[in-house]
Amino acid sequence: MKVALVGATGYSGLELLRLLHAHPFVSDVNLYSNTASENQNLIEIYPHLQNIQDKTIAVFHAEELMAQNDVVFLATPSGISMELATPFIEAKYPVIDLSGDFRLKQGKVYEKWYHQQAASETYLRQAEYGLAEFRTKPTATLVANPGCYATATLLALAPLIQEDWLQEDSIIVDGKSGISGAGKKISSATHFSETNENMSMYKINQHQHIPEIIQQMQQWNKGIQAIQFSTSLIPITRGIFITAYAKPKKELTVEKLQQLYETNYQQNEFVRVQPQGVYPTIKQVVGSNYCDLGLTYNEVTKTIMIISVIDNLVKGAAGQAIQNLNIMQGFPETAGLDFVPLYP
Amino acid sequence: MKVALVGATGYSGLELLRLLHAHPFVSDVNLYSNTASENQNLIEIYPHLQNIQDKTIAVFHAEELMAQNDVVFLATPSGISMELATPFIEAKYPVIDLSGDFRLKQGKVYEKWYHQQAASETYLRQAEYGLAEFRTKPTATLVANPGCYATATLLALAPLIQEDWLQEDSIIVDGKSGISGAGKKISSATHFSETNENMSMYKINQHQHIPEIIQQMQQWNKGIQAIQFSTSLIPITRGIFITAYAKPKKELTVEKLQQLYETNYQQNEFVRVQPQGVYPTIKQVVGSNYCDLGLTYNEVTKTIMIISVIDNLVKGAAGQAIQNLNIMQGFPETAGLDFVPLYP
Amino acid sequence: MKVALVGATGYSGLELLRLLHAHPFVSDVNLYSNTASENQNLIEIYPHLQNIQDKTIAVFHAEELMAQNDVVFLATPSGISMELATPFIEAKYPVIDLSGDFRLKQGKVYEKWYHQQAASETYLRQAEYGLAEFRTKPTATLVANPGCYATATLLALAPLIQEDWLQEDSIIVDGKSGISGAGKKISSATHFSETNENMSMYKINQHQHIPEIIQQMQQWNKGIQAIQFSTSLIPITRGIFITAYAKPKKELTVEKLQQLYETNYQQNEFVRVQPQGVYPTIKQVVGSNYCDLGLTYNEVTKTIMIISVIDNLVKGAAGQAIQNLNIMQGFPETAGLDFVPLYP
Amino acid sequence: MKVALVGATGYSGLELLRLLHAHPFVSDVNLYSNTASENQNLIEIYPHLQNIQDKTIAVFHAEELMAQNDVVFLATPSGISMELATPFIEAKYPVIDLSGDFRLKQGKVYEKWYHQQAASETYLRQAEYGLAEFRTKPTATLVANPGCYATATLLALAPLIQEDWLQEDSIIVDGKSGISGAGKKISSATHFSETNENMSMYKINQHQHIPEIIQQMQQWNKGIQAIQFSTSLIPITRGIFITAYAKPKKELTVEKLQQLYETNYQQNEFVRVQPQGVYPTIKQVVGSNYCDLGLTYNEVTKTIMIISVIDNLVKGAAGQAIQNLNIMQGFPETAGLDFVPLYP
Repeated sequence: MKVALVGATGYSGLELLRLLHAHPFVSDVNLYSNTASENQNLIEIYPHLQNIQDKTIAVFHAEELMAQNDVVFLATPSGISMELATPFIEAKYPVIDLSGDFRLKQGKVYEKWYHQQAASETYLRQAEYGLAEFRTKPTATLVANPGCYATATLLALAPLIQEDWLQEDSIIVDGKSGISGAGKKISSATHFSETNENMSMYKINQHQHIPEIIQQMQQWNKGIQAIQFSTSLIPITRGIFITAYAKPKKELTVEKLQQLYETNYQQNEFVRVQPQGVYPTIKQVVGSNYCDLGLTYNEVTKTIMIISVIDNLVKGAAGQAIQNLNIMQGFPETAGLDFVPLYP
Repeated sequence: MKVALVGATGYSGLELLRLLHAHPFVSDVNLYSNTASENQNLIEIYPHLQNIQDKTIAVFHAEELMAQNDVVFLATPSGISMELATPFIEAKYPVIDLSGDFRLKQGKVYEKWYHQQAASETYLRQAEYGLAEFRTKPTATLVANPGCYATATLLALAPLIQEDWLQEDSIIVDGKSGISGAGKKISSATHFSETNENMSMYKINQHQHIPEIIQQMQQWNKGIQAIQFSTSLIPITRGIFITAYAKPKKELTVEKLQQLYETNYQQNEFVRVQPQGVYPTIKQVVGSNYCDLGLTYNEVTKTIMIISVIDNLVKGAAGQAIQNLNIMQGFPETAGLDFVPLYP
Repeated sequence: MKVALVGATGYSGLELLRLLHAHPFVSDVNLYSNTASENQNLIEIYPHLQNIQDKTIAVFHAEELMAQNDVVFLATPSGISMELATPFIEAKYPVIDLSGDFRLKQGKVYEKWYHQQAASETYLRQAEYGLAEFRTKPTATLVANPGCYATATLLALAPLIQEDWLQEDSIIVDGKSGISGAGKKISSATHFSETNENMSMYKINQHQHIPEIIQQMQQWNKGIQAIQFSTSLIPITRGIFITAYAKPKKELTVEKLQQLYETNYQQNEFVRVQPQGVYPTIKQVVGSNYCDLGLTYNEVTKTIMIISVIDNLVKGAAGQAIQNLNIMQGFPETAGLDFVPLYP
Repeated sequence: MKVALVGATGYSGLELLRLLHAHPFVSDVNLYSNTASENQNLIEIYPHLQNIQDKTIAVFHAEELMAQNDVVFLATPSGISMELATPFIEAKYPVIDLSGDFRLKQGKVYEKWYHQQAASETYLRQAEYGLAEFRTKPTATLVANPGCYATATLLALAPLIQEDWLQEDSIIVDGKSGISGAGKKISSATHFSETNENMSMYKINQHQHIPEIIQQMQQWNKGIQAIQFSTSLIPITRGIFITAYAKPKKELTVEKLQQLYETNYQQNEFVRVQPQGVYPTIKQVVGSNYCDLGLTYNEVTKTIMIISVIDNLVKGAAGQAIQNLNIMQGFPETAGLDFVPLYP
């Protein structure tokens, strides 16, 4: 099939290009930009694509794009995606959007957290939240690919919340992200000399992934009202490391916890529950679509701690987007995603 | 005064050497080793000390050491310090020990967490836990310098615990440390290719700093029984970053929280409470004896989060040891510690 | 085909496993070890291989190995490979060896640089030096895969030396390598706290890749007698960055230089000559089999400087080994190597 | 004495502040800015200065500055310094300038390399090039503090050039710098995700430190006409690592080389010639004013290689500026610079 990619110059778009290059059912990837001038060549920005990506970036026109491709990925920022997506939605043309624009069902929630106008509620209702392991409408043509923190957090806690094992007000998520999560745009927060050998927190209690996490948790369990959620930058390029803490509603052992997760995720190729007593590290998923989970229970403090690691650009963005493409098209879920992590 | 240093080849000992070099009341630092052969020169191991440290390392003899110096720092591992310290304790000769050997009042607690025999209870009772900002016996001659994680955690939570503002079973501490915390000994866990671009957790619910944190908290507030405490490695050389979560017993605002900390720490030169809305980063304390604190309160989840950062080798080890020397000797608390952090 | 891999626990072996996993003509990879006990599982050492590599490591027996596979990769250390290879060489069974054991034609040169006994000269004569772009006997069954520095250096200078454009005594190569080049074995030189935020030189004028570089250059041009060659460690995991300096024999312009390289490498998929004025960075080849070259000529000092970058574990080891497999088997040279670099 | 500092928000200015804070003969440091609005507080930009630097930044007025201080440091960019310095030069008020504006004696050379108008030749003639170990006019009131690369390179080669031991056209300098050398200004070249795990070259044959190196070498030896000089970025914050190659005019041994350097630098506290066979690393000078040199001679290729390491912000900028202050004022050369490197 032929695939359109809008926004290849950002890191998520770039990663889509890397992964689609190896996809067995994708014959062509055509690049479009809503900002570039005609015929820009991606190699000028990204010399690593020499001999690999020889096509220039076309100016975005929805009609032409639809005529030349079978599906479109929008790797464009929140606020832009909703504009670009309109003609596709109207035409019921398949769209996988990597921004936050179609993740939230309620426009007013979007507006509170994103500080800009929401897409129309009609469109929001059509969108399927694309947490790949828990999709309910595989045939949806508008897929809102989840945020990176949201993916790592939801996969970490899904079984416990679905089974209603947690005290609702006890959930605390301490997240750490590599700097590529902040994207290609330069800023003081991503300046090497300020970031290297450093760690910092940002958007405390204000991160825009909070509402999509709560919305999805509530789909699973009406009892969840809020979570404490923190985000930090650590000096690595790729990777997210989540530690999620919660108190159980009833007696628990680590063996029960282990059994719950192994059972719930046994059909999921990309969620690897670590054996009891083994805890995942970020490096073991870098370059791959895996989400690795480590499970602990402290009998003294009656506290569960789940560790969840992903590559923010793969399972947290481009990889999951392709997983959603595979679901949408009826391809095997691992098509084009069968990468061994790059270790060391 | 003349200062003896046992264990200068480890990172804490090395840092003591760096700081003592600049101490206005220290004329000589004499090096001793309980393992080195006669007359080893530290410059062969640490070329950065050329022209700075020209003395060789003497073989450790307690009597000679006492004859030639006024105080001794033990920068030796847990299990070794307790042996080396005996003659000094018996002679009431001033000792500042950087290991865990004299931090816990109860031998059986030590034995549970350190998996080795404890020092005699007589000695343990004589030892003063050297959390410098909260010393109660400034004249003690045996000072047990706190652990790095313990220092960052206790300074983060002291005002809340002393004032009994916290629900006792709600304390969760998520700690991250630079790799120098694992010391100079080589291991897979500190191999560059495995550690770089990575993050991992270790000693989950088993870290030996847990009992000294709880012991000190109980000194302040009998209600505290246990804390959830996690430790991680992040790919930086120096620094600890703590996020401590807890639920308040009663209504709270961030302003009240801010006021509590500013009041409680206003006399403490080395604890810098950040202004409301400002959150500390590791880099702002590297090379210095500061502990910087950032305060947050989430009104939706009713959760306090305190951020605490230190340089693990300074405030978390050698710097606090010198602060304890200053307290013991009646020097100004900042003597020899008046360094501007190395930024960037 | 079925492929045997001896030495999968080292970084080169591990990378072979990653790449062979994606090779279209390889159905099975069977693991062997000459040191492991029976039935060790690689996942215990490398959790990132969970769900990917489920086979245990078999004890090495040459006969069984040959019966079960079509070719063997030796990712074993110098000194070991020569022992393991003997039965394969005798049986004319195809071997691709990643160590230095079969790279040098003269045993006494090997013994000078490797400080151990050489393989028999009969075997050394049978071996083909596997610099893939310049292979002369594609049907050789014993291939000595080049060293990582040697690959980057030889590809940097080949056209100039083949065309005899250089003053023979003017060649200076300043090499920098990521720490994974030092392998998985722990040491002070690879301890994070000593290596991070640092740069150091090692094996000055004594690096064992020097003789294979000179041997190959002499194949191209009898005039070359010696080169000045330095190696450094920089704090990254993967990658080699070479700057090669030399003086031309006659008048030169950067345009002529550019033309020479573009002409000579136009058939080579994996050598990407950068456009004039563009200089490669390490990151643009990480995870891929590319060697990217940047060309400069300083008309004031009459000095050529060539920049050459590779991923030391791919083009510098496992990737080139697979390229050699492809040549040996008549597969397309890019089979299994068509990876987009992992950027950023 | 009272010291004025213009440009404290840049990294060199910030480092001056750190070092001056510990200077025994400096009672006050007053901050000025030619761009800031009235009364900005440095702590808002640099929280690590809380409790340390409580003064606001005053708007720059030359007359007021001279009335309130005894000397001025200009840590302002090239092009700005020449404007700010005029009233001081006219008043013969002592100025130490860290920019390139007064380093070159010939305006037209400045204009070629800096691509902007030079200061007046009258002023250029008055300026003393402040390579501290080789100052000839200690009483000069206008000191042009050398560039970081220039400092490391000149100290590496001074004895060989002064003694005329080198073939004039054989000098090649391969320089590597930490990212702080690029300053505080954000750019793609200093974006963490592009810089981390990477190495790149820049300003090939065009670096503005080339002319000051040649100018100084010619002061020592008329024979030097040009050098090959390359600059790279490596992913560390602080430090410069130079490898300088050259061919000797006559027979040489490494022992003779060693003797030459030990003799020539024996009076220089901050230049530490390493023992034969020991090669310096960047980390051994970080945070200090040392320049450490390692000496090698390859008898096969008849090539000298000198390794030179400095902290680019200390010996390469602020530290040497203070060394120049000490020379100018007749203070001991090490006053305020007696720091132990921060290791690890």
